Parts: sequence; structure tokens; C-alpha cells
Amino acid sequence: MANLQDIGYSAAINLLSALAFLIAFAMLRLQPINDRVYFPKWYLKGIRSSPTRAKALVSKFVNLDYRTYCKFWNWMPAALKMPEPELIDHAGLDSVVYIRIYLLGVKIFVPITILAFGVLVPVNWTGGTLEHMKDLTFSDVDKLSISNIPSESPRFWAHVGMSFVFTFWTFYVVYKEYKTIATMRLRFLASESRRPDQFTVLVRNVPPDPDESVSEHVEHFFFVNHPNHYLTHHVVHNANKLASLVAKKKSLRNWLTYYQNKYQRNPSTKPMTKTGFFGLWGTKVDAIDWYLSEIEKLSQEEEAEREKVLRDPKSVIPAAFVSFKSRWGAAVCAQTEQTSNPTIWLTERAPEPRDVYWDNLAIPYFELTIRRLLMGVALFFLVFFFMIPIAIVQSLANIEGIQKAFPFLKPLIEVKSIKSLIQGILPGIALKIFLILLPSILMFMSKIEGFTSLSSLDRRSAAKYHFFILINVFLGSIVAGTALEQLKSFMKQSATEIPKTIGVSIPMKATFFITYIMVDGWAGIAAEILRLVPLVMFHLKNTFLVKTEQDRDQAMDPGSLEFATSEPRIQLYFLLGLVYAAVTPLLLPFIVIFFSFAYLVFRHQIINVYDQKYESGAAFWPDVHRRLLIGLVIAQLLLLGLLSTKGAAELTPCLIAQPILTIWFHKFCKGRFESAFLTLPLQDAMVRDTLERATEPKLNLRTYLQDAYIHPVFKRDEPVTPQILDEEVNSPLVATKRKSTTGNSIKISSEGISEVIS
Amino acid sequence: MANLQDIGYSAAINLLSALAFLIAFAMLRLQPINDRVYFPKWYLKGIRSSPTRAKALVSKFVNLDYRTYCKFWNWMPAALKMPEPELIDHAGLDSVVYIRIYLLGVKIFVPITILAFGVLVPVNWTGGTLEHMKDLTFSDVDKLSISNIPSESPRFWAHVGMSFVFTFWTFYVVYKEYKTIATMRLRFLASESRRPDQFTVLVRNVPPDPDESVSEHVEHFFFVNHPNHYLTHHVVHNANKLASLVAKKKSLRNWLTYYQNKYQRNPSTKPMTKTGFFGLWGTKVDAIDWYLSEIEKLSQEEEAEREKVLRDPKSVIPAAFVSFKSRWGAAVCAQTEQTSNPTIWLTERAPEPRDVYWDNLAIPYFELTIRRLLMGVALFFLVFFFMIPIAIVQSLANIEGIQKAFPFLKPLIEVKSIKSLIQGILPGIALKIFLILLPSILMFMSKIEGFTSLSSLDRRSAAKYHFFILINVFLGSIVAGTALEQLKSFMKQSATEIPKTIGVSIPMKATFFITYIMVDGWAGIAAEILRLVPLVMFHLKNTFLVKTEQDRDQAMDPGSLEFATSEPRIQLYFLLGLVYAAVTPLLLPFIVIFFSFAYLVFRHQIINVYDQKYESGAAFWPDVHRRLLIGLVIAQLLLLGLLSTKGAAELTPCLIAQPILTIWFHKFCKGRFESAFLTLPLQDAMVRDTLERATEPKLNLRTYLQDAYIHPVFKRDEPVTPQILDEEVNSPLVATKRKSTTGNSIKISSEGISEVIS
Repeated sequence: MANLQDIGYSAAINLLSALAFLIAFAMLRLQPINDRVYFPKWYLKGIRSSPTRAKALVSKFVNLDYRTYCKFWNWMPAALKMPEPELIDHAGLDSVVYIRIYLLGVKIFVPITILAFGVLVPVNWTGGTLEHMKDLTFSDVDKLSISNIPSESPRFWAHVGMSFVFTFWTFYVVYKEYKTIATMRLRFLASESRRPDQFTVLVRNVPPDPDESVSEHVEHFFFVNHPNHYLTHHVVHNANKLASLVAKKKSLRNWLTYYQNKYQRNPSTKPMTKTGFFGLWGTKVDAIDWYLSEIEKLSQEEEAEREKVLRDPKSVIPAAFVSFKSRWGAAVCAQTEQTSNPTIWLTERAPEPRDVYWDNLAIPYFELTIRRLLMGVALFFLVFFFMIPIAIVQSLANIEGIQKAFPFLKPLIEVKSIKSLIQGILPGIALKIFLILLPSILMFMSKIEGFTSLSSLDRRSAAKYHFFILINVFLGSIVAGTALEQLKSFMKQSATEIPKTIGVSIPMKATFFITYIMVDGWAGIAAEILRLVPLVMFHLKNTFLVKTEQDRDQAMDPGSLEFATSEPRIQLYFLLGLVYAAVTPLLLPFIVIFFSFAYLVFRHQIINVYDQKYESGAAFWPDVHRRLLIGLVIAQLLLLGLLSTKGAAELTPCLIAQPILTIWFHKFCKGRFESAFLTLPLQDAMVRDTLERATEPKLNLRTYLQDAYIHPVFKRDEPVTPQILDEEVNSPLVATKRKSTTGNSIKISSEGISEVIS
Repeated sequence: MANLQDIGYSAAINLLSALAFLIAFAMLRLQPINDRVYFPKWYLKGIRSSPTRAKALVSKFVNLDYRTYCKFWNWMPAALKMPEPELIDHAGLDSVVYIRIYLLGVKIFVPITILAFGVLVPVNWTGGTLEHMKDLTFSDVDKLSISNIPSESPRFWAHVGMSFVFTFWTFYVVYKEYKTIATMRLRFLASESRRPDQFTVLVRNVPPDPDESVSEHVEHFFFVNHPNHYLTHHVVHNANKLASLVAKKKSLRNWLTYYQNKYQRNPSTKPMTKTGFFGLWGTKVDAIDWYLSEIEKLSQEEEAEREKVLRDPKSVIPAAFVSFKSRWGAAVCAQTEQTSNPTIWLTERAPEPRDVYWDNLAIPYFELTIRRLLMGVALFFLVFFFMIPIAIVQSLANIEGIQKAFPFLKPLIEVKSIKSLIQGILPGIALKIFLILLPSILMFMSKIEGFTSLSSLDRRSAAKYHFFILINVFLGSIVAGTALEQLKSFMKQSATEIPKTIGVSIPMKATFFITYIMVDGWAGIAAEILRLVPLVMFHLKNTFLVKTEQDRDQAMDPGSLEFATSEPRIQLYFLLGLVYAAVTPLLLPFIVIFFSFAYLVFRHQIINVYDQKYESGAAFWPDVHRRLLIGLVIAQLLLLGLLSTKGAAELTPCLIAQPILTIWFHKFCKGRFESAFLTLPLQDAMVRDTLERATEPKLNLRTYLQDAYIHPVFKRDEPVTPQILDEEVNSPLVATKRKSTTGNSIKISSEGISEVIS
């Protein structure tokens, strides 16, 4: 086990590498050539554009103004400057609430750290067990942890007491946060300008009717059952084939641009390509001509398919977006049961148009339950048996396999040093590839499960990933061996034995997790802000594929908050903090630093970089809350297990109350707040309807909703700008009001914004 | 262990005792004096009245017509004769669906029995393990069970295969039944005549308003948020004190009648009573005068309280029954979220007026969650630690304790035979008393949990009782020792070990459970039809308390189906059947006989005796379904445990799929059917509204709903006849239509009915 000095070294190294990333970032972001990598959000909003042509050529690419370098740290205060209400307008509620998760970590763990260092560290330090055991190697870290307390010592009461304090503090902070976010969500939904999804309900599983088309059937049904409220509806076409044609055409266009650029730069040789797979074989042809003809062919095919989809009644799937005359009517329809058979005419609030996942709208109920069953079983196998296929790949990809497949490599491989290098790296690479692919696999599984919006797919994938991390990262690091081995050994142990087995190993793994936090947390976050991959990709695209300013806009990859992968990772830090709070308080400062640093970085990113694909209005918060409480229950059970091996049996009844209380607290919060994230209350709908009727009595809602829910492939050629952004640009923010409520003096104008981002 | 002969004897004895009950019943029911005990339902409906005065005095009490005795068995075919649609009209859907549980048992277990005897019994019989073990005593029962198969025998595949067949058969029957009952419920709700609860929503947790009274606040809120649908509302008064006064007055009246009767029969002596506790001590006074004055006092007090409750705004609790102009409006309000805070303005479908549990309407949300937490913990202790208080009572109520408390009994107690008798009986009595009190304790706990209708209280108590039976009767019988000891030993075993431990004991307990089925099942059901307690009680009341014909009506105690206690008991039989189907098929015929016999008896009872306190429209079916599947999962896990001790490891993967499938099946059914039991679909509401508007355009709904939801104590003196009965009498059944659909030739007239009941 490492001692304090080792941890100090490790911390120094990681801090230095994080610092290196940060300095690299600070330098790179000041270069105008990287402007679109580090400030894409402003470009997408149309507030920032490419550097003016008036300047010298050099200064278009490199920043020569030395003064800006002197204050290269100022992105940090700048990131914190923008007040929250404005940030919501600027980046959306999803992003703002997402970074509040980090802030929540700070709020929970700063007081816990202070308390733990004030109370538990002195208690542990003076425990004096480890000094007496001369034959055992121990470190200062262990002296600070619960391991230093002798068995059956009354000192354990301190730990039990503190764990109650930690529990109640967590309850308090988490409850307040849930309340705040529910309020924020409701205010956000109320303050939003008019949006099509407020009036619309997604209806699935429209039953077949022998006499009527889907469209007629939907119209009749809602006309009869919501007589005063039904307005109009959109049927959904099965445009999956069309969408793939469009995607293919886009890729061909990219290649065309690439070859045109190449020809422009070097007009002496006509670029050639081969017609076969990826241009690797086949007959050689003139590239530009060939791609032009291919695009022409595809365009015709696309046109034919488009006609067919729109004409053929069979391409209409049994789902529809039904719109109502008022928000009240839509809210009623979304929340009620339509018929006595609850598997047909299923209604739910429509997702935003850009949030719809079009492929999943037509799955019948029975198939849906079968799919969920299969995916549940698949997830179990994925989590517990994921080592098996990797081991197979590893055994296939060994030295002998490579020699057989590529005989010409034989002399190279037989060099001893290279051989051992390959043998050392290969297994790791297989695992690494799997872990990189994992989020996509989980997302694929979620898609099979049949969710109808991107936001729900993200939430569902996050739940799966959280389960995976819990078993394979957390448990896997504590108890040696693969998840499958753990499962086997746990199957043989009693329910009370399992927390003991894990609990005992907890203090021993503290230094490992401290290192993990530094490498994965600190350095990982610093790498996030550097955006190395988008940086390289942008410059590659910029060189090869960009012809017009619009191309350059498309070459930007602002990315977005990857809720499905990053939220479960944050949960691991919450879990570590809660588990070690009463056991090894030394770990807590590292957690606090992680949360503060991550908050800073992501606040900067959502202001300047990310462009969210959808806006769910923080619909993910109940999941975050639940997973945090799962972490708390795990921490409580492990403490119970650990203490019961220390011969402190009289403490057990106290500790057993903690998980029960936590589960009750979860239920309480669920009942108190969750519905705010699922439904639109009628009162709120009515208020907005009344307001709108008073302010815009002549609004023609039917026209407004006409094209709202059309499959994106039918929206020809026009750039797909999300509606909400348009509206924001059209209605500039009112600065005066914000100033007075937040006391912050940022001018909402292009100067003001440049102040924030520079 | 018992052999086949022993079981034969036991069966004979139990059959004889059941037969004795049945003969006693057949004789007693023919006596006119017992008419109100065995046919109270017909009296309540007003179709049957006391024997005509014209007959001789003797024949008013004893049936002298020998011919009726000859056909005293004909209640059985008569019970089966009434077709189901008519039975629903006659006894309500709750009762009809309740007896379908027994029918479901027959449907599940008859084919399973045939299959098990056709396949498993031969396989077991020729297994030939037990013959070779000369030192072991075994019986024929064991030769028929799985114990006779040697370890690692391929014959186990037969059991695994059959268990799959049983599982899928159960799925099929249970699915079909769920579907049937959902349809029955929807048809029932649709065919019902107009009822106040169709238009009404129960609103709880009305937030306090500084400026408005509860009534005004409710009116304004719903007027604003359901503008076209809100009609009227009733506030709820806290009339608990008033209700207790009314109850007290009623008891005093009974006493008055008793003394008046006494005086009438024997006018020579004026009856006297003592003024103290229950007339046991205090000054002696003239009984009739004293009770008259007491009633007078109480009446004044009641009147004052009534005034106070109705005048004082503080006696209005923050809950209300809100009525709408249409069923559609009420359905919408019940199913939607009203405000952004989901703990206020809670709306749900109003229970029937007679189903409302008035005491629980005013509990705030936070208190409710606390109450549920506490009752959850209490239930756990009740189930696992219930032996502790009983042991304490038992130790207190020993011989010495009795001697101390009642010294005058000393000489009696010291007689040796009496002493040993007491010592033998006392512990049993304490346990028996507890078991008799248990349903009341559970109901009390459910009331604390804050449910607002009698039907939901019944369902909730049934869930608790089911848990108790599962742990203390089923598990307690299989694994020796109290639940607490079991819990301790299970805590020390692994999750895979527990099914093994229990599974191994399963075959050994077969004969015990066969005996249990005969004693508790067969004889218990036969005792049910005899109605010994109501018989005695009726004659006591009839002698002492009856003055008028109306008094005699009130002296009848028709009773009702006690869902809270009897449904969990049926579940025990389902569980036993499913567990033993693949292990000891011999038990199955006993189960089948139980279900058939019980079906017959309860069908007779609901036709002739029971008078339900409320009609929930079979809202309990999802619970029945769920518990049945819980039984199936337990059976599957125990078979898995049993077989894994038999060295048949290759069978495990097959068997582990069963519980997963069952849980999936449960989820599937829940999604498919459950909402039919929770909500009123808008389509159905709209159909009925439209129909009503067409047929009764002039209906004044406000007048109709005026007094519907008034606390029963405010309905002065008028007899509380449930509305549904009134309506049924007003709209006599149309015989012709029923006949054609069911092919049954019962005339729905007083002659027809007498044919059914005689």
C-alpha cells in the first residue's frame, strides 16, 4: 500500500499533466485558426463569424498579440461570470442542470470533508492499532483510516454517528437540489416561447381499421373523444430507406468536394478514383465525373423513393402526432387513458421535433415487452460475462494468429523485444476497444428497447452504463477477479456475508481509488477542455472538405454533453465519496477537487462549445437523484458490513436503519417531485393558454403547427436549425431585468458576449 | 411419514365431518325460523319476507313438509343454476369475480392433475430408489413423489419438462382469466346505471388559503382549471365525534328495546339496571326510564354537535368531492396532475359513497409517507417477531399467574388432571386468540396507512395477510421453527442455498399439507355454509332485541365476503398446488376437491347470504393475479432448489429461465390489463355521456348529485339502503334476453327466484 508520500508524488504528476493540458488549451484557444474548435457555439448562434479579412494573413491563423497571452487564465473567471438565468437562455436547461450535478458534488462533499477531517481523522489517528502490529506493513494512509481502530472499540460510535450526519446532510442537500431543479424546470417550461410540442401528443399503436386509413382513423378517434380540443394531426411515414439514401448522398458530396478541392489546388493532374469498395479496387475513372454521375443517379433514386413514401398508404406507420387547440387539451390527452385496451392508442407528451427518434415509432406492445425482456437478459450477460468474448478475441489475436494471417510479418514478429511488446499490449487493446465501444453497444440496446426520443434513449443508456460501472469498475476494483467470478462467489455467500466481504476490502483500496480519481478525474477533465480529437478532425476537414463558409460551419464539431456516458461516471465519484467518507476521509479532498474543477471546465464548455441535440428540460434529474441514493445505500451497507467484522455487533441495529431511511427518503422525494418531470400540470397549461389567448387572439395555430412534425428527410435542403435557436435570436435577451435580479453586470450584446468568452 | 392408508383414514374422517356440517345445514336451512340466517340476501332485497301469518304457529318455526327433506341436496344444483350475467346483477361484480378465483383454481389444477398422474406418477413410481434403502422407513406417498428418483437420474427431465408445461398452462389460464375479468369489469362499469361516483372526483390535500374558505378555494380552482366541466362540489366535515355519538345512541336504543321486551313479557317486575360500567355496578335505577333519559341527553348532545360541525369552518377538512358535468370531465380530472406540486390538489376517482372511509380523508402528504414507513417496519416485526409477545403472554398466563390473580380457583387448579389440561391448552389459546385478532390488527394498520376507501383498505390488508401466511404458515410449516429463527438462519445462508434448504424439505411435508387441506379447506368450507355463529347470534338477537319487523331485519347478519382474510388463504392453496405439482402429485386431487367444493359453497352463499358493503367492480383482480404469480415463482425456485440437491446440475439453466419468464409475464399482463382496473378510459366515458345526453336531455345533474357525498351521520334516520339495490329493484331484470344468450330457463320473477333458492 502506498503511503502519503507516494500519493503526494502521484498527485504532483497528475496535477502537472492536467496543468500541461490546461496550458496547451490556453495557448491553442487564442489562435484564430482554432476559433471554431473552441468557440463553436457562438458561431452556431451566428454571433461570431470567421476572423475579418482586413487583417494580415498571418494574424488570421496565429495570434501575435502578446497581451492576450498574459491573461490566458481568464477563461476561468469568465466561465463563472455568466449568471444562471442567462446561461439557461444561452445553453438550455439540460446543460445548466447537468453542470449543477458537479456543483451538487461540491455542496455535499465540502462540509463532509471538513467534518470528517475534524472528527474522524483525529479519532482514527489516535486509534493506535497499527503501531502495535510490528509484522504488518502499514502506511500513513491506513493510520488515517478506520483500519487503525482496534476491534470492539467504542470509538466506532464516532463513525456510526458521523455516518448518520453524512446521511442526513446528503438528504438535505439532495432534497433541496431536487426542489430547486423541479422549480427551474417548471419555470423553464412556463417561460419558453410557444413550441409545437406543447400542443402535441405522440399517439402510438393506432389499431388497424378495415375501412379507414390511419390518418382518417386518428382524426375520427380524436374528434370524437376530445371534441372541443382536437385540432389537427401528422401521420408518420416510414422513411428509413429514404433517410439512408440521403445520408449516402451527403457522403458522396463530401467526396466530390474533396476531389474538387484537390483538382483546384493542383489543376495539372485530374484526380482519379476506383469504382469499387471505398475506392480501393475496381476500374480507374475520373473522380469528379464519376461522383457527379453517382450523385445524379442517387438523386433520382431519392426522388422516386420520396414520391413512393408520400403516396403509398402502406408507408404510413400506425403512429401520429396529434395536435390540440390548447396546451390544456394536449396535457389532458397525454395524461389520460384513451380506450379500455391500454395497449392501443397510447398517448404521451410529444418530444421536441428534433428529439424524436423516428425509427421506433411503430413497435407493437407485445413486441416491445419481448424486446425489453431480451435486452434485460442481454444486459445481464454483457455485464457479468463481458470478459468472455474479450478473452476469445485476445486468444485469437495472439502472436501465432498474427503470424498465420500475415506471414510476411513473421521476421518482424520473431524479434524478441517486439514479440513481448505485442504480447503485452494486445490483451489491453482488446479490452480498451471494448470499453470504447461499450456506450455505443448500450445505446444500440436501448434503441432496440423501443424508446421514442433521443433524450429517453440517453437516459436509458445511462442507466445501463451505471449498472456496468457499478459492477465492473467499482465492485471489480474492490474484489479482485471478473464480475463473473464475483457473481459465482456471491451466489455462495449469504446476504449478510456479501457486504462484509466487500466492506473489509474497502479501506485497503483507498489509495487505488485516490490514484483513479486523479488519473481519470483530474487529467480526464483537463483533456476534455483541450478537445484534442475535434481539434484534429476540424483541421483535417478544413483542409480537405471545405469550400464555402457554410462547409466550414458544418466542419465544426461542437459536440454535446454525452449524458449517457458521463453522468454514470460522475455517479462513480459520488459513490466513492460516500463510501469512503466514514472509512478513509483522506479520499474526500480529491473528490472535492474533482467536482470543483469539473464544474469550472464544463461551465466553460457549455458556454463556448457544446451544442445540445435536444432540450428535455432536465428530464433526467429523477435518474440522477435515484442513482445518487443508490450510491448512498451501497455506502451504508458496506459500512455495516465493515463494522460487523470489527466485532461491533451493538452498532448493527443503528446502521440497519440507514438504508431503510434512505429508501423511504427516495420514495418520499419521488412522490413529492417526480411528476413535475413527467407531466405538464393542468394549472400551468391553463395559465399559459389564458395568457396567450389574451396576448395573441388572432394566432393561427394550425398554420403554426403545419410542418412541425415532419420527418427531417422531407425538409428539403434547408439547413436544419433547431427552432428554439431561431426564436432566441429573434427575441434578443432583455438585459435590464436580468441585471437587477442577479446583480451581475453583463451586457447582452455582442460586446458583452465577447467579454464572457475571451 | 404417513402412508396412503393413513391419508385415506384422515380423508374419510374429514369427509365425514364435512358431510355432517352439510347435513346439519341442509336440515337447518329448511326450518322457517332460520330463514333469515340462510337467506338474508333475499330479505334485504325485499323479495322474501317473513313466513306468512296464515300458516299454523308450528309451521312458522319448523318445517313439517317431509317432501322438502327428501330433496335436501338440491341447493347444490340450484347454486350452479343462476347464469353469470344475472348473478352479477344479483350479487355484484365483486362477489362473482371472487368466486371465479375458486373456478380459476379448478381450471388450473384439473389438467395439471391429469398430466401429473399420467406422466409424473409412473415416472416416480418406477424410480425405485426407496425400495433399495432397507434401513429407511418410507411410505407409498413417498414412492409416488420425486423422492423415489435416484440422484443424477435422467428421469428428472420429465419433472423439468412437466414444470414447464405447468408454467405455460398456468400462464395461459391466468392470462385468459385476466382478460375475461377486465372485459367483465368494463362491461359492468358501462352497463351500470348512473351513479354519483361516475361524475365525481375525490380531491385531497387542498392547500390552505388565507383569504378563502376550503369550499371557495375548491370552487375557484376547478372553475378556473376545468372551466367547461366543473359542476359542483361537496366539502367534507370532520364528523368523527358525531359518528361516535350516533353509534353510542344506537347501542343505548338496543338496550332500551331489550328492557322494553323484557318488561312486556313479564310486566310484573320492572327491569332495573345499574348506572355504572356496562350495568355492572353503580346505583340501581329503573332501566327503561334511565335509558330513555340517557337517549334524550345523547340526542341533545348529538344535535349540538351536528350544529357545531356544520357551522364551524374549522370542522371542514381540506378535502372535497368535486363533481363534473360529464363522465369525461371527471375521468380527465381524476387522471391528470392539477398543479406543479404533486402533493396538493391530489385527485382520484371518487369511491362509491358507501365505500368511502371518512376518517382518512385529511392526512397530509408528508405524514402519509411517514405512516407508511412506520407500518412497513411494524409489519416486518409483526411477521417475524409475532411469537415474542405471545410467548410473553403465555408465560404470564401460566398456572402460577392464574393462582395469584384468582386465589379462589386454587383448589380447582390443584387437581392434577385440570392442571395439565390448562397447561396444555393455555399456550394454544394465546396463539389462537392472536390469530383471530390478526386480521383486525392488519386492518388497523392499513387504516393508519391512510387509504380512503373500504375496498382499498381490504386490498391492502389482504396483501399484509398474504405476507404473513407465506412466512408463518407456508414457510413455517416446511422449515421448523419460528419465522424469527428462519430469518436468522436464512441470513446466514447464501441466496442459492435458501431454495435448496426449503426445497429439500418440500417432499417430506406433503402428507402434512394434505391433512391441512382437508381440515382447513374441506371442513372449513363446510363450516362456512353452516354459519354457526350468525345462527346463534340471530336467535339471541331475535329473542331479546326485536320488536318490529324492521328490528328483525337489522338483527340479520348477512355478512359479506371477507376479502382481506379469505383471499390470502386461497392463495395458500394455489401455492401448495403449484409447489407440489411437480414434486408430489398426490396432493393435487385434494386441491382440486377443495376448489370445486369451495366454488359450489360460495356460489350458494353469494346468491343467498352475503350482502357486500361496497362494490369495487373487481378492482382487486390485479392483486389476485400478482399473488398467484408470486406463488408460481416460489414454486419454481423451490423446484430449482430441490433438483440442484439431486445432482442434476445440467437442469439448472433450464429452470432458472422459469422465474424470469414468470416475472416478464407479470409485467406483460400488468401493462396489458392493469389500467382497466385503475382508470376510466376517456372513450368509454364519452360513449356513456353521449348516450345519456341523447336519452335524457333534461337531466338535472346538480340535483342528482346534491346529497350523494354526505357523511352518513348527516343522513338522518332514513335507512341506509345502498343506491345500487334501489335501482335494481326499480328496474327489474329482463329475463328474455338473458335466456337466449345463456340457454338457461330461469324466470326472473318471484317464482323464478324461489326456484333458485329452494
